[in-house]
Amino acid sequence: MDNPADLTASEAAKRIRAGDLTSLKLTEACLARIEQREEALQAWAYLDADLARAQAQAADDALAAGGPRSALHGVPVGIKDIIDTADMPTESGTPHFAGRRPERDAHCVALLRDAGAVILGKTVTTELASLAPSKSRNPVNPAHSPGGSSAGSGAAVGGGMVPLALGTQTGGSVIRPASFCGVHGLKPTLGFISRRGVTLQSHTLDTVGVYGRSLDDLALISDVLGAFDPDDDVAYPRGAARLGQAVAEAAPSGGYRIGFWKTPVWDRAEPRAQAAIEDFAGGLGPACREIAFGGGIERISEDHQCVMSGENAHYYGPLYDKDKSLLTEQMRGRLEAAFAVSARQYLDAVNRREVHYEEVAAALDESDAILCLSSAGPAPEGFATTGDAIFNGLWTFLGVPCVSLPLLTVDGMPMGVQLVGKRREEDKLLRVAKWVEGQVAGRA
Amino acid sequence: MDNPADLTASEAAKRIRAGDLTSLKLTEACLARIEQREEALQAWAYLDADLARAQAQAADDALAAGGPRSALHGVPVGIKDIIDTADMPTESGTPHFAGRRPERDAHCVALLRDAGAVILGKTVTTELASLAPSKSRNPVNPAHSPGGSSAGSGAAVGGGMVPLALGTQTGGSVIRPASFCGVHGLKPTLGFISRRGVTLQSHTLDTVGVYGRSLDDLALISDVLGAFDPDDDVAYPRGAARLGQAVAEAAPSGGYRIGFWKTPVWDRAEPRAQAAIEDFAGGLGPACREIAFGGGIERISEDHQCVMSGENAHYYGPLYDKDKSLLTEQMRGRLEAAFAVSARQYLDAVNRREVHYEEVAAALDESDAILCLSSAGPAPEGFATTGDAIFNGLWTFLGVPCVSLPLLTVDGMPMGVQLVGKRREEDKLLRVAKWVEGQVAGRA
Repeated sequence: MDNPADLTASEAAKRIRAGDLTSLKLTEACLARIEQREEALQAWAYLDADLARAQAQAADDALAAGGPRSALHGVPVGIKDIIDTADMPTESGTPHFAGRRPERDAHCVALLRDAGAVILGKTVTTELASLAPSKSRNPVNPAHSPGGSSAGSGAAVGGGMVPLALGTQTGGSVIRPASFCGVHGLKPTLGFISRRGVTLQSHTLDTVGVYGRSLDDLALISDVLGAFDPDDDVAYPRGAARLGQAVAEAAPSGGYRIGFWKTPVWDRAEPRAQAAIEDFAGGLGPACREIAFGGGIERISEDHQCVMSGENAHYYGPLYDKDKSLLTEQMRGRLEAAFAVSARQYLDAVNRREVHYEEVAAALDESDAILCLSSAGPAPEGFATTGDAIFNGLWTFLGVPCVSLPLLTVDGMPMGVQLVGKRREEDKLLRVAKWVEGQVAGRA
Repeated sequence: MDNPADLTASEAAKRIRAGDLTSLKLTEACLARIEQREEALQAWAYLDADLARAQAQAADDALAAGGPRSALHGVPVGIKDIIDTADMPTESGTPHFAGRRPERDAHCVALLRDAGAVILGKTVTTELASLAPSKSRNPVNPAHSPGGSSAGSGAAVGGGMVPLALGTQTGGSVIRPASFCGVHGLKPTLGFISRRGVTLQSHTLDTVGVYGRSLDDLALISDVLGAFDPDDDVAYPRGAARLGQAVAEAAPSGGYRIGFWKTPVWDRAEPRAQAAIEDFAGGLGPACREIAFGGGIERISEDHQCVMSGENAHYYGPLYDKDKSLLTEQMRGRLEAAFAVSARQYLDAVNRREVHYEEVAAALDESDAILCLSSAGPAPEGFATTGDAIFNGLWTFLGVPCVSLPLLTVDGMPMGVQLVGKRREEDKLLRVAKWVEGQVAGRA
């Protein structure tokens, strides 16, 4: 790997600290890759090369003067364009916010800056982080969708433009692009990363997540981002972040029990995706067995949709009222349906979340992680949709941590394998994921 | 006062501890008063005289053996019949729950038992603590309503049947009966008293409150009930309860600033009630001045109604679905309207709560308490309604502590004066209330 743009964030950060690479050189390599591929991939909503260079130079200067500010020092990060940045526009993929310049950084962006990261630019989001497709293209094959809504983040990390990026997930917006773009993605527990300064569409679902090129990368950036913020109602106090340590110390010998769950929406998966994940589960041997749940959980995806719709109506209704012509037809239709969700339906569904979680948590007493599809198939060809998020919404609803590992290939396109853990147990989830990757590597 | 049934709880408790009165004698006096007045007042949903006597005897035995369990030792308390009791039915005023026998005491009932109180019996609630009038009658004039929904608790304390009672408020169900029945009532901050074991109709509004015959009485029982319960989502940790101390130490010299607020619903008050409270406010002299708010708060009562309806639909919808013929026509109509509330309307209204509270809290930086009507008038004659709760819902919505003081008389019927404080500042509210009572006593 001669081009620094192709390094994992962890390796790049290590070289920067060792003096074998500068943040500026790494940033220049990323900018060069963007220059080369952006026309095809359309991953960036905003990028000011000089601003990026200035940050990188500052990171190099700070390193020379006083050492690294964190393990992430000098590493460029792409920021989904629904996350506020004080020095770049934040337009959330809608003309409603065209030219919007936030007064301050989102909490998570401020943490990255404090850690010495380079905020490379803003990555393309679908309209208001919802379903209408964006201009971004799949980095593996630009005739395919990169997924959504964190389309640009998935494309940029997968396309070698930036080693790390932030995304957000309300339905399947972190894990699905990870699956489609062949990168690692982590949607942590609801409340792990603060949403202060992020355009909200659903306060019980919206979750900030991360993209990287390895489990170490996910841990590296998550350890910076997982700082308690009392100003986010769902945030929870946590001790020192130790995901990096969890991944580093994961025992290759394992002894883990993996529960392969087809989920109640198995029929929504493409047969080739079903075959791929069944084959993968089988390949894990006796450590992996299929699990099933009782009847109540059948409606979990419907409950997720109901809660998302009810909250979408609250958060985006004012934009519809202000000027619905600025919304896509898809968003208008979505909101009109959302306005019809009743308070009773909404509260009933909210109430069932904990009932569903109890069932899943009980299964996670028997298994160390649940294995399932990251997406209903590989990235769809064409741009009519961003793909089906049905294998993600249920987990977003439960607020549990999910990781997508780029371990499958289906008809030449990447497809992720999703592992799911208990709330607030990212550390265990990443250890299990490390073991799973080791098993695959061992077989190869 | 020769009859122990007419003592304040504080005085009765003191005499019991001093050996001048036994719990059994007090309980017998209450039972005798009930025997005498129950036919007229219809305050009790369930009463087992022998069970009450056995508790009283046990309290006397415990006192003789090891001293009092709390300052409330041996004092009888009436429990609104939506609050679970393990040894008595809890029917919540609806045939849906006819004969229901809870397996365990509500958290607040368990606290009372631990404190050595006598659970005298269950007081009448309106149907599901809502608007349809109950059979209870006003203790001052049985041709009038006692209010609702804590109808029996207000009637029983006002009618000399029991010195203390528990009620609950979702709209105006604690403060309005206090106003109508001429007793002291406290609706504390949302989360001050646990709702575990209470029939819920609105998790963001339902608040357990208390009735007594003096501020000391309210403090005495609240100090027992205000114990943190991690199993109630709205409960908050608190230090040792010191309301009794706050009332005892309240400086008669005062120096308090009272903000008289007519509220946005002033036009809903009867002219005779308007005149009475204006006269009362004027009587407080320069310590009291009229205050006003900006425009946004105009919709606070509408927002309260919207949230209550949305949550009612969730909690009571299943009863409607199961057998709507068991509900009154009034409840059916109420629920049918509630089913039509949209998730957007609900969430919009929930969201405005904190906006409204910021305005009220800012006013409470300038005033030590807000003074307003406890009810739109004195108890209405006849039983077509339980009276208008419009002067209460706004405060329930904000989750702030409210106390009703029986300081007014309008056309021969009692009417309360309401004082309101900041969330979690019951202590200050009761000190101000004590001062207000002192001012009135000084004038008399």
